[in-house]
Amino acid sequence: MGVSEIYPEGKTAADFAAWKPGDVRKLIREGKITGQTSGMCEGYAQANLVVLPKELAYDFLLFAQRNPRPCPLLEVSDTGSRTLHEIADGADIARDIPKYRIYEHGVLTGEYTDVSDFWNDGLVSFLIGCSFSFEGELLAADVPVRQIEEHCNVPMYDTSIPCRSAGIFHGNMVVSMRPIPEALIPRAVLVTGAMPRVHGAPVAIGDPESIGIHDLSRPDYGDAVTIKEGEVPVFWPCGVTPQAAVMASKPDFCITHSPGHMLLTDVKNVLLKY
Amino acid sequence: MGVSEIYPEGKTAADFAAWKPGDVRKLIREGKITGQTSGMCEGYAQANLVVLPKELAYDFLLFAQRNPRPCPLLEVSDTGSRTLHEIADGADIARDIPKYRIYEHGVLTGEYTDVSDFWNDGLVSFLIGCSFSFEGELLAADVPVRQIEEHCNVPMYDTSIPCRSAGIFHGNMVVSMRPIPEALIPRAVLVTGAMPRVHGAPVAIGDPESIGIHDLSRPDYGDAVTIKEGEVPVFWPCGVTPQAAVMASKPDFCITHSPGHMLLTDVKNVLLKY
Repeated sequence: MGVSEIYPEGKTAADFAAWKPGDVRKLIREGKITGQTSGMCEGYAQANLVVLPKELAYDFLLFAQRNPRPCPLLEVSDTGSRTLHEIADGADIARDIPKYRIYEHGVLTGEYTDVSDFWNDGLVSFLIGCSFSFEGELLAADVPVRQIEEHCNVPMYDTSIPCRSAGIFHGNMVVSMRPIPEALIPRAVLVTGAMPRVHGAPVAIGDPESIGIHDLSRPDYGDAVTIKEGEVPVFWPCGVTPQAAVMASKPDFCITHSPGHMLLTDVKNVLLKY
Repeated sequence: MGVSEIYPEGKTAADFAAWKPGDVRKLIREGKITGQTSGMCEGYAQANLVVLPKELAYDFLLFAQRNPRPCPLLEVSDTGSRTLHEIADGADIARDIPKYRIYEHGVLTGEYTDVSDFWNDGLVSFLIGCSFSFEGELLAADVPVRQIEEHCNVPMYDTSIPCRSAGIFHGNMVVSMRPIPEALIPRAVLVTGAMPRVHGAPVAIGDPESIGIHDLSRPDYGDAVTIKEGEVPVFWPCGVTPQAAVMASKPDFCITHSPGHMLLTDVKNVLLKY
């Protein structure tokens, strides 16, 4: 466990803001980058990864179909294939993400920078959209994004909002929270609502208790952030939802990206509006 | 074959324009309506049906995921279940559509008003959005819909636009065409683009040859319509696309609705924008 965070020549993730995704993926594949991807390839979507055995793929695909807001699928691989075609043409799913996690029977058994040795012909890969995409649009519209200002992870919470079950997968929705100045709430709704393929509009605005959240200062995932005077907590469906549903079902075998270590896609965020 | 078109007491479909979908579904279940549903339950979405054996369900679900514009899934049943929960709560998939078709090995073997005798625990039902939903919005925005004016079916054409394949399912996109006055094209794009869950914006505007259509007067499905001076043919992704892909794969067994005889859902068209 605990693979180190490597960047070439003492660079940081932010130094790759202006790079093309394909060029950064090449460095990742060569093992020259193993660190987190936040801030890389500005303007391009990043994707979460869930890899499951074929026997569970139908249930997971159906779970995503029934819960598109927390689980927006950007691409699903052919069974057994490690190659993507739509969102990152030619990308090798097993090598082009900086860090992976392997779970067996629901237990994290290791972190790796290359999972090709674990691949087999029965695996299906699901690439899931991420709120990084709409955060760029929020910032462009002068809506503050607190966890970026505070250099931490977005706070995420388990809620009482049930997902629609599909086969073995079930659970409640996980949401991310961003404090928004009251006057900017309509703008935040419109900006994110225009991007349904990356979570879309908020699911709740204001009272956390209404969706079963009792203490905003203690997120279930990520970090707490400051809520200033005149700001309202706004909650969006979160891509941790499908991961939580998968983990709760304790599949024999599952590969995911390591948190914060995403797939850099060739898809421009702005094109996720159409 | 050739089940008659029954409506109660000499009524026509148009007489049910102001009815609630659940009330019309009840008459359909009782065998009192076996006719086509165009014009019924104004403001509510109607859905196409494809029922496949579980062994083909994964490939079909993946085909829909990869081709959401021509194949917008509104609901997928649990395996073996005849009951819908989301778009028409409590509806019986095997009895609440006025007319069904059964295909064996790709060949149409019969039309029925009730398919419960053919049901088994291995069937999965796919309910697919339909352009009726956006046509109501076009008319509300004073954009003419020619085939409604001419009381015929919308013209549909095979194209050269490839779908993304999924397992056994592949094929080119089928499109529907509506002639739009040149000045109203932006409005038609905006109205339909706001409804991505029912096909969304056009895929082509203008030259039919650019998408492999050689003669607009000879549609591959439906009826030809008049294109007036100053009008431009506008092409939308069509829900016949997944049906054509299914038929081309000649599954052992498949149930569909009979053309024009749709499921009346409880979903308001206007809510398909969100």
